[in-house]
Amino acid sequence: MLRLQGEMIRGGTSKCWIFDHHDVVATGVDADTLLLAAYNAADPRQIDGVGGASSTTSKAAIVQASAEPGVDVEYAFAQVGIGDERVEWTSNCGNCATAVALYAVHNGLVPITPDTTTVRMLNVNTGARLTGTIPTPGSTAPHEGTAGVPGTAALGVPVLLGFEDPAGTTTGRALPTGRALDTLTGPAGPVEASLIDAGAPAALFEAKAFGLDGTESLTEFAAAVPALTALRREAALAMSLADQGEPVSHAVPKVGVVARSVSYHTTHGTLVAPDEYDLAVRMVSMHAPHPAIGLTSAVALATAAAIPGTLAHRVARQTADGTLRLGTPAGVITAQAVPATNGACPTVLLHRAARRIARAELLVPVLEGRPA
Amino acid sequence: MLRLQGEMIRGGTSKCWIFDHHDVVATGVDADTLLLAAYNAADPRQIDGVGGASSTTSKAAIVQASAEPGVDVEYAFAQVGIGDERVEWTSNCGNCATAVALYAVHNGLVPITPDTTTVRMLNVNTGARLTGTIPTPGSTAPHEGTAGVPGTAALGVPVLLGFEDPAGTTTGRALPTGRALDTLTGPAGPVEASLIDAGAPAALFEAKAFGLDGTESLTEFAAAVPALTALRREAALAMSLADQGEPVSHAVPKVGVVARSVSYHTTHGTLVAPDEYDLAVRMVSMHAPHPAIGLTSAVALATAAAIPGTLAHRVARQTADGTLRLGTPAGVITAQAVPATNGACPTVLLHRAARRIARAELLVPVLEGRPA
Repeated sequence: MLRLQGEMIRGGTSKCWIFDHHDVVATGVDADTLLLAAYNAADPRQIDGVGGASSTTSKAAIVQASAEPGVDVEYAFAQVGIGDERVEWTSNCGNCATAVALYAVHNGLVPITPDTTTVRMLNVNTGARLTGTIPTPGSTAPHEGTAGVPGTAALGVPVLLGFEDPAGTTTGRALPTGRALDTLTGPAGPVEASLIDAGAPAALFEAKAFGLDGTESLTEFAAAVPALTALRREAALAMSLADQGEPVSHAVPKVGVVARSVSYHTTHGTLVAPDEYDLAVRMVSMHAPHPAIGLTSAVALATAAAIPGTLAHRVARQTADGTLRLGTPAGVITAQAVPATNGACPTVLLHRAARRIARAELLVPVLEGRPA
Repeated sequence: MLRLQGEMIRGGTSKCWIFDHHDVVATGVDADTLLLAAYNAADPRQIDGVGGASSTTSKAAIVQASAEPGVDVEYAFAQVGIGDERVEWTSNCGNCATAVALYAVHNGLVPITPDTTTVRMLNVNTGARLTGTIPTPGSTAPHEGTAGVPGTAALGVPVLLGFEDPAGTTTGRALPTGRALDTLTGPAGPVEASLIDAGAPAALFEAKAFGLDGTESLTEFAAAVPALTALRREAALAMSLADQGEPVSHAVPKVGVVARSVSYHTTHGTLVAPDEYDLAVRMVSMHAPHPAIGLTSAVALATAAAIPGTLAHRVARQTADGTLRLGTPAGVITAQAVPATNGACPTVLLHRAARRIARAELLVPVLEGRPA
């Protein structure tokens, strides 16, 4: 029975276990084997492990101080299987990055500075660079806070999460077609699109092109999903994310609609007034309406809204400091595009929250290098 | 932010957090408030807490050394709400008792003896007395073992769980009607029944009375659930568990069918030969077939099979030492009825397994005596 220190931290609307890279190496077992056993990934209920048996509660990050210039902490994000003995290492997770930042200030991976401490992070899965800024009044790391995020009523330590120079990660440029506005052909004919690559590749449309106003309930928005699914394929081809003969991806690019802010009710029934947010957005997650918005999609929207000529720029309320309050089904998520000084694309900041739930010593059933 | 030590332990097919009563008292907060906050019970996903957001992973036990004669450890079992800020303290949980026994040998709540250590437990919710016997070779508490239980492929420390004098807990006697065999009227007319109160009140029928052989798949057995639901009400009245004017309970008594052992396939496709078990059983859980069998139902069956004249005794293979291997949809669960020397009903032993998953310090968001 191996022993492994870890911390269970809520980052935004995800629950992540964070492990120190050196502790993982010290076990003498590869990370896949260790996580599969610790989470009981083989079991659909993860009954013999620390996993929560759902996609948002079967996550881990393995962190260490970084030797890269300008990076304090690098982390590998792991999506651990549920009833499936596989660990996915191909993506980043903004919620887990929030948790990593809180872990870093609590575990001496960065020097704590007066007032606030910024953790500069490198996601080794994707090469993305992020920052997490946490209030550290009196140079002490906080255990609690009163910051909330849409999707949970729980409160936590405020974490200002920054996606540094997020444009072009996948395709090399913020506007993969070189244009702020394209025309794609959907099931009902030609439709204007803005094709963006920042945080993640995304294809954005105006809600009114689908007879919507961008404040629909999840059920109402579901009617537009088939058309947006067809347009996702057209966008993938236009952005050179896929070739004509390749299988259709339901994950890439992200697709959704934008509109001017008008009053609407969140999924939980809260009334949101037009002046409480700057851009209405309804995104698709795979085959269904997204209950809120993925953080990488929020980055794409904030980037698009800062680029004149895009549909997001056309309908978003422009603010002096680049703040963009996104009206999502779950509530308002605030992003801010901060112009870079070096000609890079704007850094996108998101107001998130994290809370350390537990510090633990895990007993991991590994036998002969395999999950027991 | 309160701090609270706890251990996450798998007991059988449940995941329980175990807390020391003195640690709970030391927080200065009542147990309900503490558990609701620690588990984030308010959230249907329990995203800000240690709960697993399912009935089998949202359980806790609060334990302490006992001053009762013949009792080492007493524990209160808590079923913590999921999207529901309530803690239920009304029932016992055999799987959590298994976890409590392992916790007790690891935390000095009982003296460890050579070869095996027996933990004598009192469930303060119901007054039930249980024992957990754990191998302790060389007087050391084990961290791992190779014992399995149907319902999970995970292995753990073997725990022989004993329900002491389990008869009559609810009604005062093992045979509430005074008879080993009754006749109840179901939707298709009169049907033989054995009405037992041991572990839990249970009404047992012969499978063939419903055109079954007791080895049906969950889907096949579902066809008999409506008739058994109607008979549950008749049994409740006959056992004086309910009065004619009272609302119908779908939980009490347990209902199910028994039959002679014949070969069958488990839900996972494993072939079980007739000589691999002693009694075929299919139980109902609320409105659906139970995927295996509840431990308290297993106690009722083992008790019934030891009483001449009951339907369980009629069809069960009798063994010299009272061992009864129950053929359930999930696989074979072994119970043993051990005659008591003092005239009490037989103690029922079940072969279970437990594994300590993690030792943790929980950070519990309680503000002013309420979950934050």
